Amino acid sequence: MIGFVVVSHSKKLANEVINLCNKMKAYDFSIVNGSGKEGKELGSDPLVIKKAIESAYSKNGVLIFTDIGSSISNTEKAINLLNDNYDKEKIKIADAPLVEGPIIAMAINDGKTALDNIILELKELKKFNKTS
Amino acid sequence: MIGFVVVSHSKKLANEVINLCNKMKAYDFSIVNGSGKEGKELGSDPLVIKKAIESAYSKNGVLIFTDIGSSISNTEKAINLLNDNYDKEKIKIADAPLVEGPIIAMAINDGKTALDNIILELKELKKFNKTS
Repeated sequence: MIGFVVVSHSKKLANEVINLCNKMKAYDFSIVNGSGKEGKELGSDPLVIKKAIESAYSKNGVLIFTDIGSSISNTEKAINLLNDNYDKEKIKIADAPLVEGPIIAMAINDGKTALDNIILELKELKKFNKTS
Repeated sequence: MIGFVVVSHSKKLANEVINLCNKMKAYDFSIVNGSGKEGKELGSDPLVIKKAIESAYSKNGVLIFTDIGSSISNTEKAINLLNDNYDKEKIKIADAPLVEGPIIAMAINDGKTALDNIILELKELKKFNKTS
């Protein structure tokens, strides 16, 4: 299974994304909160994100869901901080919304679908319009 | 000001989106939770959404942020249930992510920017890529 990491500006918000996924998910995989700063609820920190990636890591890969701005740039920094025990080719930021992304991705994270295929599916999600 | 409504499959998740917005927002406008069913945490209900729209309503309009599936279709039903006291032309579902959408929209909801302009700005957000 591919591990998921959720990086939001709000640790509590990321927690609720994870709770929703855990209630709805059909397959058993890790979803780890990489939000907040040490001792702080708001913001993000490369070291906190790095720990979350290490915790969610599997040989199939890790997919990281972010909200905006520093959540994305600090995730890039976190990936660069990982040591060679982690295959960085298999650790990817999802180009997908923080909530809608994991909901769609978890439906196909069945242990057989490769990281690249989930990323392709999420690219399709971007084309979906909520309004007609 | 334009009122916002947040409709997620999880009432607690929507609450944290609202908390984050309330902490970050520069302008004073309503953000109302339209998630959950009567007495239930998960799911959505046209009547719950309708009440939220009525509560967030202003003459400048209402912008509704949804996650996926029934959150969207139940919001469409809720809009149809509103009586003629509400100008339905000014009540719109945002074609934007549940979290990223309100964060971007609230930055320009200054009381001068029209609903249609915020909707255009959110269309631009769709073109943004989180990965290079």
